[in-house]
Amino acid sequence: MKRLVRLRNRRTRDAEGRFLIEGYRELSRAVTAGVDIEEVGYCPELFLGSNEPALLAAAEMAGATLVQYGEAPFRKISYRDRPEGLAALARQFPTGPEDLSLPDEPLILLVESIEKPGNLGTMLRTADAAGVDAVVVSDPTTDPFNPNVVRASIGCLFTVPLVVTSSTEAIEWLRGHNVRLIATTPFANGTHWEADYSGACAIAIGSEQYGLSDALLDASHERVRIPMRGQADSLNAAMAAGIVLYEALRRRTAES
Amino acid sequence: MKRLVRLRNRRTRDAEGRFLIEGYRELSRAVTAGVDIEEVGYCPELFLGSNEPALLAAAEMAGATLVQYGEAPFRKISYRDRPEGLAALARQFPTGPEDLSLPDEPLILLVESIEKPGNLGTMLRTADAAGVDAVVVSDPTTDPFNPNVVRASIGCLFTVPLVVTSSTEAIEWLRGHNVRLIATTPFANGTHWEADYSGACAIAIGSEQYGLSDALLDASHERVRIPMRGQADSLNAAMAAGIVLYEALRRRTAES
Repeated sequence: MKRLVRLRNRRTRDAEGRFLIEGYRELSRAVTAGVDIEEVGYCPELFLGSNEPALLAAAEMAGATLVQYGEAPFRKISYRDRPEGLAALARQFPTGPEDLSLPDEPLILLVESIEKPGNLGTMLRTADAAGVDAVVVSDPTTDPFNPNVVRASIGCLFTVPLVVTSSTEAIEWLRGHNVRLIATTPFANGTHWEADYSGACAIAIGSEQYGLSDALLDASHERVRIPMRGQADSLNAAMAAGIVLYEALRRRTAES
Repeated sequence: MKRLVRLRNRRTRDAEGRFLIEGYRELSRAVTAGVDIEEVGYCPELFLGSNEPALLAAAEMAGATLVQYGEAPFRKISYRDRPEGLAALARQFPTGPEDLSLPDEPLILLVESIEKPGNLGTMLRTADAAGVDAVVVSDPTTDPFNPNVVRASIGCLFTVPLVVTSSTEAIEWLRGHNVRLIATTPFANGTHWEADYSGACAIAIGSEQYGLSDALLDASHERVRIPMRGQADSLNAAMAAGIVLYEALRRRTAES
């Protein structure tokens, strides 16, 4: 039980190479994706639906040890205000570019130095919805195994192919795979409605505070801005990603 | 000082008709929008930039009392992990439909029963960016004067014309103004790319858990879904709003 609680801490996660998965949808997507789950703590009194026993059976079949908890101790394990009675200890999976297999003309989302776990999680969830072929997380400030990333992604951390690397290596890797890089920045002349999303392309979104680094801006083939019609000067970073991704999906759907 | 802290609580906000505004951008937009600010607590040691004294002067000119705090007491007032040294006590402003003046062919965002303050705030921020003419918040679960709405909206609570009402009244009001209602639901046949966004129209987004009510679905002129290409079955509600709003903006820009 203490092991699960300690994994809320990044240093423990990095040292142990493990992380925490809470919630029904999150655990369900992890099991389906073949994430190595070592242990599942569960508390039937907190289950919200009726499919939890089947999910536990699937996790056990895949090699997880099941440990039942009473309601009070489970609430101590849980990271959430409204626990769903499922909390698993899992091994972090590899996120190197070499572990990725891509289709011929992939659509990639590259997110640089994202600071807020909620934003990174929402980006993963939205990338899944938009049918993105890979999410590249470069120079991350928050690690993708943060429990709030798992939560905000509602388990899409496990459904979208993921690469975690430096921005320098990401640029090299995109070049090596002949991927066009479309950088979003408020200082571009063209809008995201005018961009060329055909073929192999990556959409780059920068950090909440500082936007994209000069290295990524310089490496880009095209720079685009999202039109702003109000008094505020920016969108939430995850929102910006979703708006550009869905425009890319629209165009790639219409053109195919 | 205690008065400011107590306004974190909804019952106090409702009873007093006041609310809390923290942060530079938030307070700045409130002052510009003419929100009635009664008192501004400030702490120069925590200022992040150099424009805070000018903002304080503007707030004082508009009638606010300024109260300086030391760092320790200010941190107790502040709702935030990283306080910016500005926390104001303001009067809630009217949000009835009768207080709203609209252009000829408005674009409206209607959000029903939104539960999470962060989502409602992000919707307001995104509505501002997309140049929406009004946001109608119907049957709200979270009140728009919640400090987390102010924060996630980064003050766009004050820049976008806002109506708070019941869904029943919202439907009547839209009918009375000949506004076409476009309802988003995963069960629609057509996609949001195919919708008719011309003229006076309102885009309706439902609650995080349950989507739109039957009343709003039945009252709609068109139902649309956002295409889902991944393994997850839904987008974050604020994200869905942003994706449809920017498609509407694209089409209304292209067609005008």
